Amino acid sequence: MEKKIKVVQMGLGPIGNQATRYLAEKAGIEIVGAVDVDPDKVGQDVGVLAGIDEIGVTVAASIEQALNGKNADCVLLTTASSLEKIYDQLVKLLHYGVNIVSSCEELSYPWLTNTKMAMDIDELAKKHNVSVLSTGINPGFLMDFLPVAMSGVCRSISKVTVERIQDATFRRVPFQKKIGAGLTVAEFHEKVKAGSLRHVGLTESLHMIASRLGWKLDKTDDTISPIIATKLVQTDAMIVETGNVLGVEQIGVGIVAGKEVIRLSFRAAIGEPDVRDRIIIEGSPQIDTCIKDGVNGDVATCAILINAIPVVVKAGSGLRTMVDIEPISYFA
Amino acid sequence: MEKKIKVVQMGLGPIGNQATRYLAEKAGIEIVGAVDVDPDKVGQDVGVLAGIDEIGVTVAASIEQALNGKNADCVLLTTASSLEKIYDQLVKLLHYGVNIVSSCEELSYPWLTNTKMAMDIDELAKKHNVSVLSTGINPGFLMDFLPVAMSGVCRSISKVTVERIQDATFRRVPFQKKIGAGLTVAEFHEKVKAGSLRHVGLTESLHMIASRLGWKLDKTDDTISPIIATKLVQTDAMIVETGNVLGVEQIGVGIVAGKEVIRLSFRAAIGEPDVRDRIIIEGSPQIDTCIKDGVNGDVATCAILINAIPVVVKAGSGLRTMVDIEPISYFA
Repeated sequence: MEKKIKVVQMGLGPIGNQATRYLAEKAGIEIVGAVDVDPDKVGQDVGVLAGIDEIGVTVAASIEQALNGKNADCVLLTTASSLEKIYDQLVKLLHYGVNIVSSCEELSYPWLTNTKMAMDIDELAKKHNVSVLSTGINPGFLMDFLPVAMSGVCRSISKVTVERIQDATFRRVPFQKKIGAGLTVAEFHEKVKAGSLRHVGLTESLHMIASRLGWKLDKTDDTISPIIATKLVQTDAMIVETGNVLGVEQIGVGIVAGKEVIRLSFRAAIGEPDVRDRIIIEGSPQIDTCIKDGVNGDVATCAILINAIPVVVKAGSGLRTMVDIEPISYFA
Repeated sequence: MEKKIKVVQMGLGPIGNQATRYLAEKAGIEIVGAVDVDPDKVGQDVGVLAGIDEIGVTVAASIEQALNGKNADCVLLTTASSLEKIYDQLVKLLHYGVNIVSSCEELSYPWLTNTKMAMDIDELAKKHNVSVLSTGINPGFLMDFLPVAMSGVCRSISKVTVERIQDATFRRVPFQKKIGAGLTVAEFHEKVKAGSLRHVGLTESLHMIASRLGWKLDKTDDTISPIIATKLVQTDAMIVETGNVLGVEQIGVGIVAGKEVIRLSFRAAIGEPDVRDRIIIEGSPQIDTCIKDGVNGDVATCAILINAIPVVVKAGSGLRTMVDIEPISYFA
């Protein structure tokens, strides 16, 4: 029998608890530690906290308590989307010589958006002979890894377009609120201005694609607009008046020599039609790939984090990205 | 400016000549040698032979003549589909300490179909600190790499199905003949029996998928059937009488505990409807991906060979496969 991979789960918000449930299902993984700063969670069994059976691992308040003497192979880090916010956590973890899989969107491809931190993490990871990878469905898969992987069959490429279109009608209410559903247009723009209504990662995905296709982007854009109700729309959870917001459209664009070469379009709204994920590569041959109904982000985001663990544990050291590591795949 | 990758093109049949044309387009690649056994080709300029401008590289008759003193980084080997046929070529090339990208279908995942040769090649490649990869559209991409890569977003999987359905009506006549179009059913079965009507690689793709998903296949099947005309069909090149063969259906199946867990279905026939490539993953989440009109195999097979070169040159040493190497992507 192969040795189990020893994993510490760090960050026990909704994603962290879901990760715990998925980790517990894997025969090849052993949860050996858990950590969260919330005093209400510290001391609880991490399985019970996640809503499953007791695992026998107590939530610790600090990295030291969670990792000391555990010989962990990998930490699954699901604490924040901002690289600045998790930087100190990464540094502390790397000193333990553990590999890290993270859900931090800004860590998915920080080489151009936060070069100094990227280089420091890379250097520290190499020094301790471990690797660091941030992944997820988006960024991490749909709008970067997958178009890059599809491009491998092309002789020439002039443009890459990715569309992710989601109907929020039957999603959780927090998701509906996150995309601005029910707000007035003024409220929507205030939230965008405050930075609280924004999908993080389009710029990282643009750079990830460009890096592998050998394109030097002169400019990137990331614009957010409201999708507005043209008639009254009612769901189980809310009423959206005509003229108010059904959801969001966010578009990331990469430009070379004045020409748009990458377009990443994310739409999520109540009642949105034509739900799907689509990748179009203009070139030779043309590639037009459509994932029917789109990839379910609730399950997929967490699944890919778990599935990344064995690949990251055996990868060469340093800060890795989804486009310079072996493909992440399901494992039984 | 980055150093150009020095490539030797070995095997100058239709694929090798097409590869030469594609190689010549890449700014990052320099063709430094070419080799073929055909005395009619030896001595010709490899560019002229491929139908493009003179490149200044003469086709050599032997590996020795093509590689001596060339400091080649990589050989693109497009000589045969059978691993036994290219084994001696691989051994000879590896002694030159060059990386190898090959179109040999049986080399795409030989670990279970030809374990001894796979281990010998792996050992020799490691000894010379180079890597060997066989790729293509199928095997190499559509029926193995892509479903494996898509599986990364899944929490659970019960079955993987891949369908590649092609209409041969507007393909080259040699392709139409290759799939048996125009034959009687008796002639079709004779050709199958003789091994001359067979798509090579389904078994390799089955093993490639299973290896990454952690499935131990109890049994694999690879069956070939004729697709029969129910009415007279006429193309520019041929007439297919009612009851004769329009093309081929070949199905590869992987079984675990009596249950079909992988199904790879390849159909190519004159007048075939519903042309597409499709990957269905039954699991959580369900994945149903469709590539509209399918990937054009004529361009893609060659493009992915060229695109693999920079990845193989920098990969860790040994016999690699498409599911244990960084993603192959287009590069400008």
